[in-house]
Amino acid sequence: MLEKTTRVNYLFDFYQALLTPKQRSYMEMYYLEDYSLGEISELSQVSRQAVYDNIKRTEMMLETYEKKLHLYEKFQKRAALLEKLEQAAEATKTSNAILTMIEQLKELD
Amino acid sequence: MLEKTTRVNYLFDFYQALLTPKQRSYMEMYYLEDYSLGEISELSQVSRQAVYDNIKRTEMMLETYEKKLHLYEKFQKRAALLEKLEQAAEATKTSNAILTMIEQLKELD
Repeated sequence: MLEKTTRVNYLFDFYQALLTPKQRSYMEMYYLEDYSLGEISELSQVSRQAVYDNIKRTEMMLETYEKKLHLYEKFQKRAALLEKLEQAAEATKTSNAILTMIEQLKELD
Repeated sequence: MLEKTTRVNYLFDFYQALLTPKQRSYMEMYYLEDYSLGEISELSQVSRQAVYDNIKRTEMMLETYEKKLHLYEKFQKRAALLEKLEQAAEATKTSNAILTMIEQLKELD
């Protein structure tokens, strides 16, 4: 069965602009609006198997884009660094620590 | 004629993983190694026109990816903010200003 994971949701967020309208529509129904494969099949007037195959293929495409562009991976790294930076700024620690983190952040881009 | 702009170089940086090996190769020769169309044509044993068309098409693809994913645009925004953030940290101004910029930075992701 398909797994409705956070990872897929993130990948969909980052790469949905590269999908076809039909791919986007199935993914939205399945992952965002929580329709079942059976319900999507009925609404779209195609077989349940066709919906399943389309979603599976789309998931593989998202993973392929991620392997090439690493947008989700970079996002996670940036988010982790920003979290640290924010904590440091909140505590108003030495500005050296802040600058070091900013440097790391820049290297991610 | 083709223009060897900084913009194309940046777009190539961000999206080259989505190009075919041949597209990548022509772009590298033309934009990074500064070969002329004539030289690329000789090296690749294809017509000068074919090289030109391929590079032009690739440039259009890069712009299409940018319209969809905005990686270069986001990079520029992040870079500008990080510059400000760095200046503020260097001057060790109020930490409120720093936090505000960090918030903006997060919203870009």
